[in-house]
Amino acid sequence: MTAPRFDVLGIGNAIVDVLARVEDDFLVEEGLHKGSMNLIDTERAEYLYAKMGAGIESSGGSAGNTIFGFTSLGGKAAYFGKVANDQLGEIFAHDMRSLGAHFETRPLAGGNPTARCMVLISPDGERTMNTYLGACSELTEQDIDEAVVRESGILYMEGYLWDKENAKNAFRKAARVAHEAGRKVSITLSDSFCVDRFREEFLELIQSGQVDIVFANESEVKALYQTSDRATALNALRRDTSLSAVTLGGEGSVAISGNQTHHVAACSVRELVDTTGAGDLYAAGFLFGLAQDMHLEKCAMLGNFCASEVIQHVGPRPEHDLRHAAEQGQLL
Amino acid sequence: MTAPRFDVLGIGNAIVDVLARVEDDFLVEEGLHKGSMNLIDTERAEYLYAKMGAGIESSGGSAGNTIFGFTSLGGKAAYFGKVANDQLGEIFAHDMRSLGAHFETRPLAGGNPTARCMVLISPDGERTMNTYLGACSELTEQDIDEAVVRESGILYMEGYLWDKENAKNAFRKAARVAHEAGRKVSITLSDSFCVDRFREEFLELIQSGQVDIVFANESEVKALYQTSDRATALNALRRDTSLSAVTLGGEGSVAISGNQTHHVAACSVRELVDTTGAGDLYAAGFLFGLAQDMHLEKCAMLGNFCASEVIQHVGPRPEHDLRHAAEQGQLL
Repeated sequence: MTAPRFDVLGIGNAIVDVLARVEDDFLVEEGLHKGSMNLIDTERAEYLYAKMGAGIESSGGSAGNTIFGFTSLGGKAAYFGKVANDQLGEIFAHDMRSLGAHFETRPLAGGNPTARCMVLISPDGERTMNTYLGACSELTEQDIDEAVVRESGILYMEGYLWDKENAKNAFRKAARVAHEAGRKVSITLSDSFCVDRFREEFLELIQSGQVDIVFANESEVKALYQTSDRATALNALRRDTSLSAVTLGGEGSVAISGNQTHHVAACSVRELVDTTGAGDLYAAGFLFGLAQDMHLEKCAMLGNFCASEVIQHVGPRPEHDLRHAAEQGQLL
Repeated sequence: MTAPRFDVLGIGNAIVDVLARVEDDFLVEEGLHKGSMNLIDTERAEYLYAKMGAGIESSGGSAGNTIFGFTSLGGKAAYFGKVANDQLGEIFAHDMRSLGAHFETRPLAGGNPTARCMVLISPDGERTMNTYLGACSELTEQDIDEAVVRESGILYMEGYLWDKENAKNAFRKAARVAHEAGRKVSITLSDSFCVDRFREEFLELIQSGQVDIVFANESEVKALYQTSDRATALNALRRDTSLSAVTLGGEGSVAISGNQTHHVAACSVRELVDTTGAGDLYAAGFLFGLAQDMHLEKCAMLGNFCASEVIQHVGPRPEHDLRHAAEQGQLL
């Protein structure tokens, strides 16, 4: 097996976020479950956008945020995701490439516009997401550049891809090609509602060994194993995967592999502003550690560190050079 | 004279900002004068965008920011500015209307795209702007809805409009209609380089009484009167205008009218993050005070207060409800 050209390849929904602060009342009035991700159609997107306040726009998408963070740490990465041939698509592509990530998925021409996610930030910093998938829905097996998959050490995919049949097939193809080339395959469970929609399929992916590494937060793991007990959920994950990393909010995170368990406390945070991208940046740090063959505890520390940066400002992507910051903090 | 339907009508370049942090070296390498606003063409815009890092996007434009801040304080406002019929134009329009501002300028179809300004934020929080005017260049006299001008208590216009002949004619027409309806006309000098380009015309506007109220920062007033002495510059402004408000950076601001001079210290700032929009939000607060017939000292305090909000985060528009914040601070 040759050394990989890319440390990590991310595949996900290529989305531009529109972030705005709202009061909790707004979520109640609009029937939105705080902290959730809701898929919406054009009509609902127009309705919500008209009702919400002024926003700021930022490239987003779960795996996109992870890849951005990973390159900000100095890693070599590639990304597959479908934007449209429009202004928001250009912004997404620019931002993805601005740190050197390889991003060559052909933009969709003449179809739906680039995906947009209205991210409503509550006073407590929690975010509630409303995603219009647009061009993302057209990500297919044809977008899986097999050479890039073979040249990438770890494949990393969003559970969110499971919402579209095309993307699911693309996911399966990428996982197969990666394993044939002796690479690792990882997944993030994305969202507890997403887990509820696809529990059996996610369990099958994990238990059959199509996926080697699982990223999740506590509520996603509990949803996966239909338990309200943390220890029960984590032990089920330990049994089913060779490696998993679970975020625990203010309690930090835990890396689990065989009989090893590494719990690492969260970094201190001056002010929690916006949790958008927290899990994505955790994965960026953890994957960077893995790619450098660091000890699992160090991987989890790097994950916690990257997550702590992104929750202290509005937006899902780091504002600072993570490599520099991690070096300052003596994590690298 | 009937009571105005709108307290303030802003006219300006309708721009979406792309904000990114840069090191000072980047400005030096690209030959950019820190703190300036540079007009750029398509080619230069593409070059700079390719070189700069990932950004966040926010509706901007000097007068646009002022109108947004003014409505956030609870004022009634209208805005004229030219966007294109594209995604960035939709974002600008949404944001402008999200707080109830009247914005009905017809978008440009089939021409240049919506204007974009690449705002490069240095480590010291200073911003350097690179503006591709795009659709803004097509703002003409036809876009001046005379009924709205007549129904607006104070007309507020950007000096930046002076860069395009069409917009200059639109400015003159709006000023004439406003004065015929017994309304006040104000201008912001925008930028010391802008003042250098149009010194004679700006002086003529002010000295002939086509403009009643002048907003500026210290370097713009010094550029206008070609002096390096603050007192000389302010006294010249006192002689030429019935009312002016000048920002002095960390020293706060001064309101000048006849033999009155009100110097108001700056609000305390926890961390200076990004000065983008500081002058625009100062004008928003000052104009709100004027529209409510407040004492000039109170107007300047409100201006300082609004400016202090916008410099503590990335982006040119307030993130918080200014009315609520001003009430908490017992300014309203």
